[in-house]
Amino acid sequence: MPESLSTDASTDLYHAMSTLRAVRRLRPDPIPQEVMERILQAACWAPTGGNMQPWRVIVATDPIIKQGLADIYRPEWEKYLVGFRKRLEAMPEDDQAQWEKVITSGDYLADNLHEAPAILVFCANPKMMAITDAKLDRISMVGGGSVYPAVQNLMLACVAEGLGCTITTLHCLREDAVMSLLNVPDGWATVAMVPIGYPVGKGHGPITRLPPTEMAFENTFGQAWTV
Amino acid sequence: MPESLSTDASTDLYHAMSTLRAVRRLRPDPIPQEVMERILQAACWAPTGGNMQPWRVIVATDPIIKQGLADIYRPEWEKYLVGFRKRLEAMPEDDQAQWEKVITSGDYLADNLHEAPAILVFCANPKMMAITDAKLDRISMVGGGSVYPAVQNLMLACVAEGLGCTITTLHCLREDAVMSLLNVPDGWATVAMVPIGYPVGKGHGPITRLPPTEMAFENTFGQAWTV
Repeated sequence: MPESLSTDASTDLYHAMSTLRAVRRLRPDPIPQEVMERILQAACWAPTGGNMQPWRVIVATDPIIKQGLADIYRPEWEKYLVGFRKRLEAMPEDDQAQWEKVITSGDYLADNLHEAPAILVFCANPKMMAITDAKLDRISMVGGGSVYPAVQNLMLACVAEGLGCTITTLHCLREDAVMSLLNVPDGWATVAMVPIGYPVGKGHGPITRLPPTEMAFENTFGQAWTV
Repeated sequence: MPESLSTDASTDLYHAMSTLRAVRRLRPDPIPQEVMERILQAACWAPTGGNMQPWRVIVATDPIIKQGLADIYRPEWEKYLVGFRKRLEAMPEDDQAQWEKVITSGDYLADNLHEAPAILVFCANPKMMAITDAKLDRISMVGGGSVYPAVQNLMLACVAEGLGCTITTLHCLREDAVMSLLNVPDGWATVAMVPIGYPVGKGHGPITRLPPTEMAFENTFGQAWTV
């Protein structure tokens, strides 16, 4: 481990995982370079098919670049919200109230994205991957297996470092504009945008997820896994 | 956190990440149910788009099911190896020697897969996802963003619990056979197969990865990120 990565801080793995929630309200305060190095190193450690590391990450800190990303993101968020609000009407009232909070924080992110101290854009190159589900009669997902583990490592590292973060993919709806703004070469894809910064509020904390008894099966699909 | 998840063991996040390597030689010894619960819980904690958790995991422990998975996997590994050996010939000798070790452990996995105490098959449902890159003129990857973070969480938890593991996707080349064997309903996909078990050798340990100075860019693609 490079010397700059030695730190007295030790974060328990399960604690980081169980408190990684979307943090969308970020302060503009800059992120020290040694902190940035640690979260980028965490991403680099992630496994990839054939150890090809077929991804790169662009750390956007320049105000003009960040403004450009925000200008691409905001209209896509607004369009997404129109459809989401329609689905929301069909939900139980309690769920609606919960999602209204998410919408408010999503609006905050869309309005303030350019002020995040860093926006990370993960790029991936499918030509560096063996995508085993490419020819199936369904949408391919396996390419993501060599980049989202790196994104997840980075976000867990953000928890360890006290940085808020959230993963967004709406920018893909205008990937051409993103690639042009960031000079991403043809053949690459932009698969995640992760704004990071110190949180305005409490930051990461309790999460609501279905447990193993709902998510896991025993031997065949649909057969309950029990403790 | 359920009582069964309280444990004295604390694993440093960065330690787990920096030692998560492919462990392909696994002992047949069974995995205690409380250990299995903790690694499954780790997977459940992962973020997903719209918190939909659009994945499920099948824990295969039945000898007949595991043998079926091994019978699907082995011929695909052998076919993969033919192409891989051709690419290997073009590599520098040092790299060849390194990859020969990987091939040997890959052969071991293919020959002994049915003896792993558990083989986890992650399934994902694209109809439960908003896949923002579905209509682009490139292969889609964003669907993986709502399942591989869970796979990564599970594999990091394996490190914490002393379990060896590796992620494989070759089974996708015969996804129809896998779905039939595991009764996976139409509309679902099988995006990762993770055999787990206590390691024959040292298990997880040092890894070789490109560092942030090679993997990260500043503001635009190709512009070096420096510490």
